Amino acid sequence: MYTIGIDLGGTNIKAGLCDDSLKIIDKDSVPTLAYRPGEEIVKDMAALAERLIERNQLKIGDIEYVGIAAPGTVNTKSGQVEYANNLPFKHFPIADIFKKYLPINKIYLANDANAAALGESLAGAARGSKSSIMVTLGTGVGGGIVIGGKLFTGGLNDAAGELGHMVIHVGGRLCSCGRRGCWEAYCSASALTDITKTKMNELRIKGIPSLLFDCADREGKVSARTAFNAKVRGDKHGEEIVNEYISNLACGITNLINMFQPEIICIGGGVSNEKSGIAEPVSAIVSTEQYTRHNEKKTQIKIAALGNNAGIIGAAGLGR
Amino acid sequence: MYTIGIDLGGTNIKAGLCDDSLKIIDKDSVPTLAYRPGEEIVKDMAALAERLIERNQLKIGDIEYVGIAAPGTVNTKSGQVEYANNLPFKHFPIADIFKKYLPINKIYLANDANAAALGESLAGAARGSKSSIMVTLGTGVGGGIVIGGKLFTGGLNDAAGELGHMVIHVGGRLCSCGRRGCWEAYCSASALTDITKTKMNELRIKGIPSLLFDCADREGKVSARTAFNAKVRGDKHGEEIVNEYISNLACGITNLINMFQPEIICIGGGVSNEKSGIAEPVSAIVSTEQYTRHNEKKTQIKIAALGNNAGIIGAAGLGR
Repeated sequence: MYTIGIDLGGTNIKAGLCDDSLKIIDKDSVPTLAYRPGEEIVKDMAALAERLIERNQLKIGDIEYVGIAAPGTVNTKSGQVEYANNLPFKHFPIADIFKKYLPINKIYLANDANAAALGESLAGAARGSKSSIMVTLGTGVGGGIVIGGKLFTGGLNDAAGELGHMVIHVGGRLCSCGRRGCWEAYCSASALTDITKTKMNELRIKGIPSLLFDCADREGKVSARTAFNAKVRGDKHGEEIVNEYISNLACGITNLINMFQPEIICIGGGVSNEKSGIAEPVSAIVSTEQYTRHNEKKTQIKIAALGNNAGIIGAAGLGR
Repeated sequence: MYTIGIDLGGTNIKAGLCDDSLKIIDKDSVPTLAYRPGEEIVKDMAALAERLIERNQLKIGDIEYVGIAAPGTVNTKSGQVEYANNLPFKHFPIADIFKKYLPINKIYLANDANAAALGESLAGAARGSKSSIMVTLGTGVGGGIVIGGKLFTGGLNDAAGELGHMVIHVGGRLCSCGRRGCWEAYCSASALTDITKTKMNELRIKGIPSLLFDCADREGKVSARTAFNAKVRGDKHGEEIVNEYISNLACGITNLINMFQPEIICIGGGVSNEKSGIAEPVSAIVSTEQYTRHNEKKTQIKIAALGNNAGIIGAAGLGR
């Protein structure tokens, strides 16, 4: 049997036809055009799934189920997207509407960060484990928790796993969620960019030279990469920013280990691809800080393996 | 059928005979005398259980199982206490040794903070819920997590739920675990006592009067109660300490809600009994800080209901 995973993003709708081992056999995408009415977006999602079925000489009956990874808060039981920041969905019955356009028996729905965590658990960096956590370092710090091989969505609101909104610096930097000091306000790519900009402004005012400026010039902007690039070239200001970033990242990961004791934590998102490597320095700090540092069994910290396909693969695995 | 719950502490061994509804029908205790060889302690545990069986005119066959709540790290599968701070146990097969002295078919073992959480879930403040977290504000900040009606002990080491060792103040107060800024270093009864002492020293040096001094004199010492008592009498320094304590407590609880979305969080331990009430001011902060503050369903924050019996009742419920 085959399954189809659809990763609905603010910019693109991506869909993949997967086999029993969750290998993507074929995939395709169309622009989301998020300004449209929700129903038109879902219609395109169904059309995309149908295209995959047809061009692989399959029938609808060959598809065991369709899994949808959607941004925002979802109700996995009712198949509704309750709310999404950048899509026109409010208590939106995405599963039922999908069925109108493609008569599939089973539709599974999950939050996109959760789906990515399941993808890594079933077919990526956490494959073979029963318990894992995925931390995604992107615009925000997203998360997904797998317990006993299944997504853990909590007792209320299907909203567990908002890992980025764990305060680690009481009274610290303002977070998009309204709290101060959230992990996300220190460890998202946006936060790192912002922290780098602030540091560069300070240096500029004081007239202190730094390779941060040259790195930003070469890249055409200040980004989450700037400090890493400057550090690699020996810049001490870049190194300071990166060290503090890694230290905050390790703090949040240690907190997660002390609470969940997962077999594996995988780190995904843009920042995880830094060539200088973040898993190793983070692991070094975690190994001295975690509560179970004297226990034989330790959580492994890995870089996520599925990249942009994690959402598709996780969605395709939602019925497992 | 009946079950027996044994709460093994550093000072006393407490045991309770429970009925089907986990009501304690009879209970008893003996001193632990923790300096003795482990086997002697377990022998006394078995004798205590036997005494409860005999004086209630029951037979061993009437006891479905015995549950043991032990301090430290336990291996629930092998029935071993791996390590306990204040007891002579190291990779100690407590369940097997217990069976030598009392031929009971089934023995269940859990960490004491976890057992208390299960007790509150099955028969206390979180009764009727499927997902709850218990936070115990004692010498440390202990915790237990119930997911789907069962204790969650994590993927590794049976050691999940070390809630007190979640850093909320990066670089902050030193914790007993070696990290800086742990929740426990701000919200345990010991931390509150310590913070109160530090404040009083400051005031003393500066010659600033405060009712903190009078409260400590009346109590004969500085304790976790001193600041609460001074606050009730209108002392602004007491109020400052209490407000900061409540704010840190609410921070950790909000973090837990954002990660677990439990139906109920119960707060136990000495500090939870403060007459001026801590559940209400904590809830007030959590309601504005939690990620799901706009959702209809919200985690309820309650004071634990079972007091010192939580461990016995939780142990007696381990086989549920």
